Amino acid sequence: MIRAATGQSVERTPVWLMRQAGRILPEYRAVRASLSGFKELVETPELAAEVTIQPVDLLGVDAAIIFSDILVIPDAMGLPYRMEKGVGPIFDNTISEVSDVAKMKIADPGDDLKYVTDAIAITKKELNGRVPLIGFAGAPWTILSYMVEGKGSKTFSEARKFLYTEPKGAHELLDKIADSTIAYLKAQIEAGADVIQLFDSWAGILPKHQYLEFGLRYINKICDAISEVPITVFAKGAWFALKEIGEINCNTIGLDWHTTPAMARNLVGGEKTLQGNLDPCLLYASEDELVKGTIEMLENFGKERHIANLGHGVYPDTNPEKVKLFINTIKDYKF
Amino acid sequence: MIRAATGQSVERTPVWLMRQAGRILPEYRAVRASLSGFKELVETPELAAEVTIQPVDLLGVDAAIIFSDILVIPDAMGLPYRMEKGVGPIFDNTISEVSDVAKMKIADPGDDLKYVTDAIAITKKELNGRVPLIGFAGAPWTILSYMVEGKGSKTFSEARKFLYTEPKGAHELLDKIADSTIAYLKAQIEAGADVIQLFDSWAGILPKHQYLEFGLRYINKICDAISEVPITVFAKGAWFALKEIGEINCNTIGLDWHTTPAMARNLVGGEKTLQGNLDPCLLYASEDELVKGTIEMLENFGKERHIANLGHGVYPDTNPEKVKLFINTIKDYKF
Repeated sequence: MIRAATGQSVERTPVWLMRQAGRILPEYRAVRASLSGFKELVETPELAAEVTIQPVDLLGVDAAIIFSDILVIPDAMGLPYRMEKGVGPIFDNTISEVSDVAKMKIADPGDDLKYVTDAIAITKKELNGRVPLIGFAGAPWTILSYMVEGKGSKTFSEARKFLYTEPKGAHELLDKIADSTIAYLKAQIEAGADVIQLFDSWAGILPKHQYLEFGLRYINKICDAISEVPITVFAKGAWFALKEIGEINCNTIGLDWHTTPAMARNLVGGEKTLQGNLDPCLLYASEDELVKGTIEMLENFGKERHIANLGHGVYPDTNPEKVKLFINTIKDYKF
Repeated sequence: MIRAATGQSVERTPVWLMRQAGRILPEYRAVRASLSGFKELVETPELAAEVTIQPVDLLGVDAAIIFSDILVIPDAMGLPYRMEKGVGPIFDNTISEVSDVAKMKIADPGDDLKYVTDAIAITKKELNGRVPLIGFAGAPWTILSYMVEGKGSKTFSEARKFLYTEPKGAHELLDKIADSTIAYLKAQIEAGADVIQLFDSWAGILPKHQYLEFGLRYINKICDAISEVPITVFAKGAWFALKEIGEINCNTIGLDWHTTPAMARNLVGGEKTLQGNLDPCLLYASEDELVKGTIEMLENFGKERHIANLGHGVYPDTNPEKVKLFINTIKDYKF
């Protein structure tokens, strides 16, 4: 996977899945059932390490991704959240005006996020070099969205309103998030992360001019600050900014299932690795359809500079046998 | 607006807003507060007519759109829904297997949807020719999504699973929805609707090949069956299928705020009218920014074959004064 990310030649396409450590595995659900909630799992390094390694052992993926949550950053900056069953994350306090931004601190990973770096160190040791370990963070715009909205949203109109009504405050907050994220990612790398992925889950909701100003600008800042390991940028839904994403100082660009490999290659040029992008719902289809779609994806991306993945996190009710079929089809494919 | 939709010359760009009849207006909230819920308003023709006309009187838009809900169709087919405060629509029964599809009937608008056609007839009379009246329906894929999911969803993975696991059942259901919709729209036209708009709110979630097979195919069927009045197709998020939408037998294509006028014109050619597409969040910005963005939009679309609108329904917390400024900027603009 590291060779694919850095443009070296590979024997075959590497493969992992977003959300591979999680509810698709009965072994994950067993660990989870013994706990009070999702946050306890995120904050207990031994258990986070255990569920991180499960898909390596059980599914045979070519990389592990540390089990955590993008919302640990607002938490570490002074805005705690809780997970509500059937609803998702809830912040009891939110950023609603500029004066709230001043109250946010730059996260100190050695102190506030030690549970993540500890989990990485344990995982790294237990993986013992079998596969690389991916560290990650949310991109600043997505993190700001949650800090302003206080929960998930269909339109994120509160967060978007903040950009229009308080652009200076938004930049100030995004800068603090970016600085927190840089410190956090450097700590992850020091603890053992071999690759970093930035998730911009709500990239696709902003108009292009705003995404360049409030989104990519801070991804850029983070990518420029991290030179130790390869970085992947996954800006979901941001088809309209793919050319500009291609100009960022990152190694790999994640794609959702709407962007064809040809379109992406055409827009970003030949110097980036592409990651993705099977429709996660194709894992609900018949085995024949799944194998056919997977091979089509491999052929459309080509052998070099591709890391196979889904175009979104694997959905919780996906049959693990189908996930294995997806993975094995990729591992067995001969170009 | 009718002239713009049919490619005739206009003195100025016409303008209306998706969701203009609704929570942005205090006068709407006053009507709504006197009732038990949203559905009572939808199902009471005199009141639906009253709130339909409010934005014509109060905001000065160039068209009225009948106050209703796309979910009246599943209701009329045998799958009732209720509106839950803070949650949205909930269906107590859903389509979960092929045998459920057989239980669905083709809606009989004269019987099941008379409250809508009555509301149209009253509105038409009260408008007295001042502005055209837009009738509407949900596109079949979006309606199927709700019928399978039973509520809103971030991923619509249940509905998408149904397409992959039960493609025959899905086609059967989509066909029933399309037939119900055709009968419904013909009844709306007979009652006085001057223009029809199809809303495909969840178009953007399907991969292209599936959107062509399960989405556009049925929009096509509906458009081919309606020749009495101009039709608008608004497939939100379906940038990847814009060329194919341009080949449909419709007059106008609605655009969200990601698609530039140049991109749309390039993909659909010169024979369609384009509708949209100001970012609804720009109405949160300063007056100067709003006027600047509105004029930019007008100039980018050009004078002919454009109906000004937002790229999404106006958000409930938008200041009506800003909406008026948007409308008046368009009405006052001289090309």
